[in-house]
Amino acid sequence: MAYCADHNRVINFAAGPAKLPEEVLLTAQRDMLNYSGLGVSVMELSHRSAEFGKIMNKVEQDFRDLLDIPDNYKVLFLPGGGTGQFSAVPMNLLNGGTADYVVTGSWSAKALKEGQKYGKVTEVYKKPASYTGIPTHDTWNLNPEAKYLYYCNNETVHGVEFQQTPYTLPNVPLVCDSSSNMLSRPIDVAKHGLIYAGAQKNMGCAGVTAVIVREDLVGTSIPECPIILDYKTQVGMNSLYNTPPVYSIYIMGLVFEWVKKQGGVQVMEERSIKKSGLLYDIIDNSDNFYCCPVDASTRSRMNVTYRIGGPNGNEELEKKFVDEAKKQGMISLKGHRSVGGIRASLYNATTIEETMKLAEFMTEFKEKYFSLM
Amino acid sequence: MAYCADHNRVINFAAGPAKLPEEVLLTAQRDMLNYSGLGVSVMELSHRSAEFGKIMNKVEQDFRDLLDIPDNYKVLFLPGGGTGQFSAVPMNLLNGGTADYVVTGSWSAKALKEGQKYGKVTEVYKKPASYTGIPTHDTWNLNPEAKYLYYCNNETVHGVEFQQTPYTLPNVPLVCDSSSNMLSRPIDVAKHGLIYAGAQKNMGCAGVTAVIVREDLVGTSIPECPIILDYKTQVGMNSLYNTPPVYSIYIMGLVFEWVKKQGGVQVMEERSIKKSGLLYDIIDNSDNFYCCPVDASTRSRMNVTYRIGGPNGNEELEKKFVDEAKKQGMISLKGHRSVGGIRASLYNATTIEETMKLAEFMTEFKEKYFSLM
Repeated sequence: MAYCADHNRVINFAAGPAKLPEEVLLTAQRDMLNYSGLGVSVMELSHRSAEFGKIMNKVEQDFRDLLDIPDNYKVLFLPGGGTGQFSAVPMNLLNGGTADYVVTGSWSAKALKEGQKYGKVTEVYKKPASYTGIPTHDTWNLNPEAKYLYYCNNETVHGVEFQQTPYTLPNVPLVCDSSSNMLSRPIDVAKHGLIYAGAQKNMGCAGVTAVIVREDLVGTSIPECPIILDYKTQVGMNSLYNTPPVYSIYIMGLVFEWVKKQGGVQVMEERSIKKSGLLYDIIDNSDNFYCCPVDASTRSRMNVTYRIGGPNGNEELEKKFVDEAKKQGMISLKGHRSVGGIRASLYNATTIEETMKLAEFMTEFKEKYFSLM
Repeated sequence: MAYCADHNRVINFAAGPAKLPEEVLLTAQRDMLNYSGLGVSVMELSHRSAEFGKIMNKVEQDFRDLLDIPDNYKVLFLPGGGTGQFSAVPMNLLNGGTADYVVTGSWSAKALKEGQKYGKVTEVYKKPASYTGIPTHDTWNLNPEAKYLYYCNNETVHGVEFQQTPYTLPNVPLVCDSSSNMLSRPIDVAKHGLIYAGAQKNMGCAGVTAVIVREDLVGTSIPECPIILDYKTQVGMNSLYNTPPVYSIYIMGLVFEWVKKQGGVQVMEERSIKKSGLLYDIIDNSDNFYCCPVDASTRSRMNVTYRIGGPNGNEELEKKFVDEAKKQGMISLKGHRSVGGIRASLYNATTIEETMKLAEFMTEFKEKYFSLM
């Protein structure tokens, strides 16, 4: 039986679930009925078996290698996605105290709202009129007693990304939602108390969330914390208190192996700079035909957001853009319904060649329709 | 590219994650890189896309057809497994009240313990010395004010299964954990307030849990309920408040299609009676070489548990049994570590032919080792 590239594949710019490396899918396809000569699919493999234990250990070790995770951090693979961690973080870390949230887009806004169910959690600055940048930290109202300072490393909907680890007060651990830029750039784990990421953007398929937590923060959750989200229980059981999403963990492991083979996170970062640069260059040299609302200093490398036909966008032109791109085999370019416009997501699996194809299309589209602006 | 049966497959008696129908795996394999001509894998498909919407609608409709779910019941597909529902049920239904639990094995015991975090939940009878049967309902201490009466339809570890819907007081809704016998026998949904099942035994791969809930019970959860487990929120968003486990839902849909094609739940039940009967017959006619500790009236059709070499088991013989079976291509026959012995799980995907092979092996093994008893 031969497994080879499928030439009917399209170029997928979806924001998540998102494109996976073709090598990962080919391996998953090859091993679907018989993993590693065991005569069963990974889907059919008992989570208590020695064979799945090997998968789990390798996945964790590869993740540790890729991010250079210090030994005093535990790694968990949990169900419930990033949204599950909106609840798990305050349930495990708040302990009746307060927490500060840096709200830079709709995901951190949702995390804040969920956090408020569990205690006094506060924005460090007043909600801006629109999420198009990150106020400098000297304007933040930080509480030295906060149990943690929360931020979302990359806002998928608005295309706003931190370009360095944010400032925090001494003894206030940083908590980072890195769901949509994990493994696309180095992250200094030691500067954080906790980092989490849902897999379905840069790390695999939906259904599993990686949590990196400094061991001294693994302590007492509130009594109402569901046991599946209790860090202490899951750390004690190596993420196997309940049946884990075995197949999603396996796919994540294949992605980790692929990233390692490519040269690691540094190489992913170089490619991300190049890919996003290709599109931002066209946007910035389009005489306002393409307009990115995000401040240049906080533009996302993962989700390039823009309007077409001026800063407020021309919906007719934007629809035409999405439709004509689709005819050329490029899908999922429509912006999030809450902001409109266009969004091109450039996760690790998206190649430079694919991005160049979109760049060429953008140039041609501009030439064709500039007069309609 | 040809996709055909893999002749190196083994016979998998694992308790979950468990065997899937080979047709399901072959379809998943075929469509791994290109689902339905879309040019992407289902893993890569946005959960907000029209195409995934079609998958979700079909999965729900097939599930409704298979179980004949009345219109006044909502269907959810949630993360967190059955264990997530141990918490979600009391967080959503208890509302400061009390609940009764029928504890027939380790799963319902865990559900009880988790429920006690959220209010006054009580066993309806004193914990027995061992879980080998179900006391008749006239011995149950039922509270007419209970918000619900909880039971586990099939106890995977102990091999204890309800043979009919349990008795409940008027106006006390039944809540059923049917994780390990869902779709293996009809269930009268209308007699229940809520039924849930993790997918990884009879319905698919780990990572998704189906919840059937009567709409009048979808109401106010406690403020601490994580939003991913809040029934009202998820009902309002058709299980898409957060990114659902798209691939696990897709695999579950393939299993539903397969069950329909086989003739539905009635056919699954006929096969389950036949398969489990083959093994129980050998056990009951083995002169105590094989001993099933479970009362004949509550023996599980899904998980046949027994000791070898007398009622207390001979661990050496049991190890030999597991090892020799493995050499013949039959895996995962070891009983749960908490009870020892042997467990043969006979979920829907296990064929009558495969079960006959185990039956023949049991007969031969007995002939070979009876003298060592």
